[in-house]
Amino acid sequence: MMRAALALFSRKGYSAASVQDVADAIGVLKGSVYHYIGSKEDLLFRIFDDAHVENEALMIEISALDVGPVDKLRTYLERSLLVTLNNIERTTLYFRDWRYLTGERQETISKHRRQYDVFLRELISEAYKAEGVESHVQLKHISSFVIGGTNWVADWFRSDGPDSAESIAKDYTDMAMSAIFRSQDRPEH
Amino acid sequence: MMRAALALFSRKGYSAASVQDVADAIGVLKGSVYHYIGSKEDLLFRIFDDAHVENEALMIEISALDVGPVDKLRTYLERSLLVTLNNIERTTLYFRDWRYLTGERQETISKHRRQYDVFLRELISEAYKAEGVESHVQLKHISSFVIGGTNWVADWFRSDGPDSAESIAKDYTDMAMSAIFRSQDRPEH
Repeated sequence: MMRAALALFSRKGYSAASVQDVADAIGVLKGSVYHYIGSKEDLLFRIFDDAHVENEALMIEISALDVGPVDKLRTYLERSLLVTLNNIERTTLYFRDWRYLTGERQETISKHRRQYDVFLRELISEAYKAEGVESHVQLKHISSFVIGGTNWVADWFRSDGPDSAESIAKDYTDMAMSAIFRSQDRPEH
Repeated sequence: MMRAALALFSRKGYSAASVQDVADAIGVLKGSVYHYIGSKEDLLFRIFDDAHVENEALMIEISALDVGPVDKLRTYLERSLLVTLNNIERTTLYFRDWRYLTGERQETISKHRRQYDVFLRELISEAYKAEGVESHVQLKHISSFVIGGTNWVADWFRSDGPDSAESIAKDYTDMAMSAIFRSQDRPEH
């Protein structure tokens, strides 16, 4: 049911899709769908909640990695990009329609976004410490730039396009690492 | 009228706001608003079209600059960020609600987005040539990362916040330039 809802919301847009459409897509009566969910908004929230469960598992896994802080940061960025790219329908739906969530559900999603941001800032901060780097740019700006740059793949990536998720994840991770470790020898004029 | 529409769409969301609300905000009858526009969608389109006029003027100005390609790129990024930050209501509205445009209007906006993308790619390509840089990352990915990273300021920037638009534009430009000129001596493990 969640897969059908995702495909439908993704294609028609959340606001234009109805619970009836979801029921039709899986071939059951609308009442059967309401047996599992309380509202259309529930469906949207659960799709994003699934994403959060995956992201949380990733953060726990990364925290437990027995590698240096720079490798940890790089691995997180690349793995996180792969989650984004391998679930591109969900990612696109998220950025387009998450604002349709209301009240507590919207607050929960906002809370999750802050968690990812804090997690990334900590990884960057640890990597800076390990490398003796001091950046004049505030950590919150660095993480926002990296999150924006990497999330932008949702704007154009198609899983049937010419580039593999793996190669894109690697390239974007390289660019993110370069933005984070801003080199002193880049052209200055 | 455009200022009132922007403020209203920005606050209430485009889909929830009505032409009647716009008329109320400027203290005229709804009929008077319809004297100038054909529909609510016209208002949204005109707001974005104003932005395009500014962006086009910026691109022309940058093209005419008598400086080297690296400086040209840096100046464009910084000036473009200032336009984004100094019109933060419009920027936020754009990313949130541009999809409400339909048909030809949506195509026009998509065409403008491609123009910005092509312009940035050309600036990057010229800067690479001037510096003898060859990147293994495709230009389209570099420009997407930079556009995403810099546009993400719309996610959190408030003009009454602690950081000035000027300092943020400078920091984000630095990060974008680092991502573009990916250094060889950044930590590799």
